[in-house]
Amino acid sequence: MDAISVIRTKRDRGRLSDEQIDWVIDAYTRGVVADEQMSALAMAILLNGMDRSEIARWTAAMIASGERMDFSSLSRPTADKHSTGGVGDKITLPLAPLVAACGAAVPQLSGRGLGHTGGTLDKLESIPGWRATLSNAEMLSVLDEVGAVICAAGDGLAPADKKLYALRDVTATVEAIPLIASSIMSKKIAEGTGSLVLDVKVGSGAFMKSLEDARELAATMVGLGTDHGVRTVALLTDMSVPLGLTAGNALEVRESVEVLAGGGPADVVELTLALAREMLDAAGLTDADPAKALADGSAMDVWRRMIRAQGGDPDATLPVARETHVVTAPATGVLSGLDAYAVGLAAWRLGAGRARKEDAVQAGAGIELHAKPGDAVTEGAPLMTLHTDTPEQFGYALQALEDAVTVAAPGSAPAPTPIVLDRIA
Amino acid sequence: MDAISVIRTKRDRGRLSDEQIDWVIDAYTRGVVADEQMSALAMAILLNGMDRSEIARWTAAMIASGERMDFSSLSRPTADKHSTGGVGDKITLPLAPLVAACGAAVPQLSGRGLGHTGGTLDKLESIPGWRATLSNAEMLSVLDEVGAVICAAGDGLAPADKKLYALRDVTATVEAIPLIASSIMSKKIAEGTGSLVLDVKVGSGAFMKSLEDARELAATMVGLGTDHGVRTVALLTDMSVPLGLTAGNALEVRESVEVLAGGGPADVVELTLALAREMLDAAGLTDADPAKALADGSAMDVWRRMIRAQGGDPDATLPVARETHVVTAPATGVLSGLDAYAVGLAAWRLGAGRARKEDAVQAGAGIELHAKPGDAVTEGAPLMTLHTDTPEQFGYALQALEDAVTVAAPGSAPAPTPIVLDRIA
Repeated sequence: MDAISVIRTKRDRGRLSDEQIDWVIDAYTRGVVADEQMSALAMAILLNGMDRSEIARWTAAMIASGERMDFSSLSRPTADKHSTGGVGDKITLPLAPLVAACGAAVPQLSGRGLGHTGGTLDKLESIPGWRATLSNAEMLSVLDEVGAVICAAGDGLAPADKKLYALRDVTATVEAIPLIASSIMSKKIAEGTGSLVLDVKVGSGAFMKSLEDARELAATMVGLGTDHGVRTVALLTDMSVPLGLTAGNALEVRESVEVLAGGGPADVVELTLALAREMLDAAGLTDADPAKALADGSAMDVWRRMIRAQGGDPDATLPVARETHVVTAPATGVLSGLDAYAVGLAAWRLGAGRARKEDAVQAGAGIELHAKPGDAVTEGAPLMTLHTDTPEQFGYALQALEDAVTVAAPGSAPAPTPIVLDRIA
Repeated sequence: MDAISVIRTKRDRGRLSDEQIDWVIDAYTRGVVADEQMSALAMAILLNGMDRSEIARWTAAMIASGERMDFSSLSRPTADKHSTGGVGDKITLPLAPLVAACGAAVPQLSGRGLGHTGGTLDKLESIPGWRATLSNAEMLSVLDEVGAVICAAGDGLAPADKKLYALRDVTATVEAIPLIASSIMSKKIAEGTGSLVLDVKVGSGAFMKSLEDARELAATMVGLGTDHGVRTVALLTDMSVPLGLTAGNALEVRESVEVLAGGGPADVVELTLALAREMLDAAGLTDADPAKALADGSAMDVWRRMIRAQGGDPDATLPVARETHVVTAPATGVLSGLDAYAVGLAAWRLGAGRARKEDAVQAGAGIELHAKPGDAVTEGAPLMTLHTDTPEQFGYALQALEDAVTVAAPGSAPAPTPIVLDRIA
């Protein structure tokens, strides 16, 4: 077996055999297959595809490259959620404690942000004292005692994926559905959850720009989960507009706490409840009532215990950016468009995200929205507020927002877009 | 400009702009674009292609990555030849002195062999004392005094190509017509020849297995040469059967000297004369008579002076392998097939070629053929002799030859294949 013959098979539109897949993933993890060989293979996969059984074997080989976790000692059923990433997507923050408050154990192994979409760990790290890195034993203990844990995935889970993801990021091979699906699912299956709800984002602020691509990705992942004994459901949700009214780390924590307190923007509450119901159903807790757990404060209780268990102070004042700049509405009428990608890019440029893995993020940076599509706006009145510690970036962020906003004539109401576009089980 | 956006353009079937091509070749040569990024781009080019103007710009950028030579001080017109590589292809050895004997200056910057096709420098290095590496000044001086020089291309010519070629070799991206064409032509154009004849091999022993692919490659290269002011002609020639009766370094030198002495196998003589006529025509020496120069010994005189000018002894005894093994004909009849790739692979396994750039080759190793297709053979009589210093390799070489030979019923004569299949100008 050698790398060139494996690459050649996929280059010439062939099917990779089980032996070829097992060999190339193992040899790449060990450094026997070089980065330049794996990137040529990744490009051939992106352009020529893989069939369902190739993707299944590829995923299994990535799982086998590392350790597997085991939650079978827990008394509660486990339920996990994964989002493919969007602008203002803070849903994990209220969702994990909410689902735990309803009786499931929620192990959320999360990542940091790269590019225009934020990372759950970056958001939580704006809470003074909170730490993302736990040992496996610590993680299990928080999960057992609190019912929910959000922490960094350990280095032992699917190391092949870790290496391959970093490579894809610099070789323009991120956008391959077989590679996205196997990357997400190898980590989730290795993690050992019993059930999984996928939030597959569709629209300008997401990796998947079209409903068709998102449906293919969702179906591929649901198939992989099911094949590995994980009850898996996917919701396709709208990401043409930012979620909620904030994009940025501490800003999103603040909004998440509002939701846990029974308030918060309607779209964040709607999606949190929709995903909670799916997770509870998948975990077999069909009688649970997540709306009640939000209203009666039990979800907030779990949140406070979860933050405290990882060293954070849930009552601490959140960091605030040093400078703000207000963007006003360009006309009077009804806000008809607010492009998610543009807002995400602007927030990133303000310091909320990072360009390279090594970069730090600004806890207070980001964007606060004062209106969402469908709302009436008045020319010259505040439309959004930009926050940053590095005001020299305002100009660059404003460039990203240049064509982001559209205002329709007063009285004309754009048809409301539903948050949940489709469901694949 | 960044590598990811360049890769993405070609991945998404776009046209690379002049600025993208200039930037990526220069940045790759300087190490700013990483190997794993260039290999992803090479795979995208292999699968999605480049149009004629992209190939032209790519070639120009590779030429610009290094120095250019200048033969304008020579009193004779320059004529160069390039073969895409085949089994038993020793044609450069008799051809260069022959064309020089007819009045042209022949600067043959050659390479070493990799894989199943031999390298011209490896062949000549079996002559005691002969050295491949000359300074530019030495090269010009041999060319001026003798009329022909065969030596290693200096590191200064098209360094981008040198780096890219080594990368393609390990990433299964060798077989991309735009990359093959620009690789060959960037070196030939940087070398500064006035005219160029391309010998594009077709068949099992060649990179191009089909006449259609070979025609596309030839037309691409003729276009590139013409665009850069080099009079360029291509012959498409048969490589389904080895050229001549030998494959291996010293064995091929011996056969080349036989041709220069007025003898040698008919196919080698025919192709040498056909290429010589094309080179002389392209150089404007239309009255020259290469057949006469072979017959009257003037080509042999140039050969002897050329070998001596590079430290070699044209009268020295050539190295002979320590062990031989005779393969006999499996049946009585007419030899109807003798697969070039199988013979090349067997010669390589016997030690005539190298697996990695760092390996040494055996001067005496290789294969001597005692019959060619169309010849009568007798069951049990010698069909070929294998030569090696490492007899433990005989079994491995014989494996390669297992299906190489076919014998037809006595009296049935297979239709003779012409050597020159097509001409593209």
